[in-house]
Amino acid sequence: MIKKPYLMFIGDVSTAVFAKTAAGVKYWRPEQAAGQFRFPGGVDLGLPDFTMKEAVNAGIKTILIGVAPQGGGLPQEWLDFLIEALDAGLDIASGLHVRLAEIPALKAAAEKNNCNIFDVRFSTQTFTVGKGTPRSGKRLLTVGTDCSVGKMYMALALEKEMQKQGLKATFRATGQTGILIAGSGVSVDAVVADFISGATEFICPGNEPDHWDVIEGQGSLFHPAYAGVSLGLLHGSQADAIVVCHEAGRKDVKGIEGYALPSLKECIHLNLQMGGRTNPDIKCVGVGINTSSLSDAEAMDYLNKAEDETGLPCADPVRTGVAAIVESLL
Amino acid sequence: MIKKPYLMFIGDVSTAVFAKTAAGVKYWRPEQAAGQFRFPGGVDLGLPDFTMKEAVNAGIKTILIGVAPQGGGLPQEWLDFLIEALDAGLDIASGLHVRLAEIPALKAAAEKNNCNIFDVRFSTQTFTVGKGTPRSGKRLLTVGTDCSVGKMYMALALEKEMQKQGLKATFRATGQTGILIAGSGVSVDAVVADFISGATEFICPGNEPDHWDVIEGQGSLFHPAYAGVSLGLLHGSQADAIVVCHEAGRKDVKGIEGYALPSLKECIHLNLQMGGRTNPDIKCVGVGINTSSLSDAEAMDYLNKAEDETGLPCADPVRTGVAAIVESLL
Repeated sequence: MIKKPYLMFIGDVSTAVFAKTAAGVKYWRPEQAAGQFRFPGGVDLGLPDFTMKEAVNAGIKTILIGVAPQGGGLPQEWLDFLIEALDAGLDIASGLHVRLAEIPALKAAAEKNNCNIFDVRFSTQTFTVGKGTPRSGKRLLTVGTDCSVGKMYMALALEKEMQKQGLKATFRATGQTGILIAGSGVSVDAVVADFISGATEFICPGNEPDHWDVIEGQGSLFHPAYAGVSLGLLHGSQADAIVVCHEAGRKDVKGIEGYALPSLKECIHLNLQMGGRTNPDIKCVGVGINTSSLSDAEAMDYLNKAEDETGLPCADPVRTGVAAIVESLL
Repeated sequence: MIKKPYLMFIGDVSTAVFAKTAAGVKYWRPEQAAGQFRFPGGVDLGLPDFTMKEAVNAGIKTILIGVAPQGGGLPQEWLDFLIEALDAGLDIASGLHVRLAEIPALKAAAEKNNCNIFDVRFSTQTFTVGKGTPRSGKRLLTVGTDCSVGKMYMALALEKEMQKQGLKATFRATGQTGILIAGSGVSVDAVVADFISGATEFICPGNEPDHWDVIEGQGSLFHPAYAGVSLGLLHGSQADAIVVCHEAGRKDVKGIEGYALPSLKECIHLNLQMGGRTNPDIKCVGVGINTSSLSDAEAMDYLNKAEDETGLPCADPVRTGVAAIVESLL
C-alpha cells in the first residue's frame, strides 16, 4: 500500500501526453494530488508548486513519478532530487520501465532513511496458481475490443458512480497507472504466465455479499499478443458482470497490422462465452465508448447507434457519465 | 542448446514415477541417453551404469537430472556428485524447481570449469511481445481438455511418424521435460505474461514452406488457472493444425473441484474458434487419447467411439501410433 497524499514529480517533462499518469491521478484522486514539483519548463498540472521541504511540511508522504522522461534514461538531476526526497523521509512510487529500487544510489538512500520505493510495473509478490473456487462478493470486469480503449477510466468511473449512489464498490488496479491511482494493485501482465489467474484472484478476494470489486481489464481476447493476459483476468475475476470498452473510430488492433477489431456484439459474445467457464452467471451490463475524438453531436449519434446494436446502455465515462450502466447493473 | 549425449542422473530415486523425465528422454531420444548414474537403490532405466569418469570417456557431454528428489530439497550427496561432474567438464541440465545455477558451490564449479548449467524450468531470455504477422512454414499445436493428458507425447509421436514418412518435422518444446528431450525450447508458462505469444513466436519462427513445427501445448482453454497460457500459445503458434488430446476416463479438471471437462467436440470447437484469430485456416486433424488405464479391447472401443463423435482419426501415441493422424494432416 502506497502512502498518501502524493507530491507529483513532473521534472522537466513539458508535454502533457508524457504526464498522463500524473494527470490521471489528479483527475480520479484529486484529494491525493497535494502538490507538484517541477523543474523550469515542466508542465503545469494546476497543483501547488512545492519544494521538497514544503511538501514534507504539508503532510505529503510519497513522491509519485507520474511522467516518462523524454529520451528514456533517468536524468542525473532527477536522481539527485529523488535522493534528497528520500533523505527527507518521503517514499517513492514509480511506474517507469527502469526499476528505481535497483539503482544503487536510490537503494542506499532508501535503506538509510527507512523509506520504500514502489516500482509498480514489477510485482515483488509471489502468487499461487488460480484456484477457480467460487467466492463471496460481486465482481465487475471492464474488457475491451483492444488495448488503450478506456478500460481503466470506465472502471474508475463506475467505482465513483456506485459510491455516489451509496453502493459498496472498490476499484481494483491491474496496470501501473491504475496502481498509482489506487495506491495498490498488481500489474497482471508482469506476473509469470502460470499465475495470471492466481494474481487476479489475489487482487479481488472474497468480500461482503453486496460489495462490488470493479476490476480494471487489460488487453483484449482479440489481441494477438495479449489475449492470454485478458483470458487469465477474465477467468480469475470470476466476473458477475462485464462492461465492454471501445474507442470510437478505431477499426484495427493498434500497432499490429492485419487485425480488424471485432464488433461490439462479437466482443460481448466472446467474453461472456469464455467468462462463463468460471462464472456461469456472467452478464454484460453496458458498453463504454471513448468518444474524445468526436464532437458532441457525433458522440451522441455514436452512442445511440451502439445502443441499437447491443441493446445495452452505452456511455462515455468522461463525456456522459456512467449512471445508466450502474442502473443496468442493479 | 544443451549438448548431447546425456548421462541420466538417477541418484537414490527408487520409484519409477519420480524418474518420469529420465524415462521420457530415454523413450523418445534413446540415442541421447548414453548412460545412467545411480546411488545404491536407484531405479534402473536399463542403461549402462557409468561412473562419472566412464561417462566422460564414453563421450557424454551433459548430466541430465531427470528425477525429482524425494522430499524436495537437494541432498548433499547429489551436490557433491554434481560438483565432481562439473570438475570433469560436464554441463548440467535440470528440470528441478530449485535453480541449480544459483547454488553457490555449483555456480563456482561451473565458472571454474567453464561449464554450463541449464535450469530449463526458468527462462533466461528476454522476449518481445507477439507480432501476429503471418510467417512461412507450417505449424501443428497439440491442445488438451486438461493438463497432463498427453500433449507432449502426441507432439513427439507426430514428429517421429512424420520424419519416418520423410516429411520435414521438428518438435518444439514448451515445458521442462520437453526441453530436456529436445535439448532446447522455452518453458512458456514461466515467461512474463505479456510475452506468452511473443515467446511462442520465438520458439517456432518462419521456416521452409513444407516444414512442420510440431509444438507441445500446455494446459487447456478450459482450465481455470492456465487458460491464459494455452491461449497465448494458440495465438502465438498461428497453428495450421491442432490435435486435441485427452485422457480416457478423466471427467474433471485435475486437482480443481467443480470443473467438468469439455467434450472432445467442444474442445475442438473452442480451439478452432480462438485459433482462427491468428490463422483463419486452422483445422483439427485428429484426436489423441491416453488409454493407458484401459485394456486393449476397452481402448479400441474408446477410440472407435471418439472417432464416431468427432469424425476424426483418434489414436493413442503409445498404443496405436499416430500414422492415421499424419495421413489426415496431409
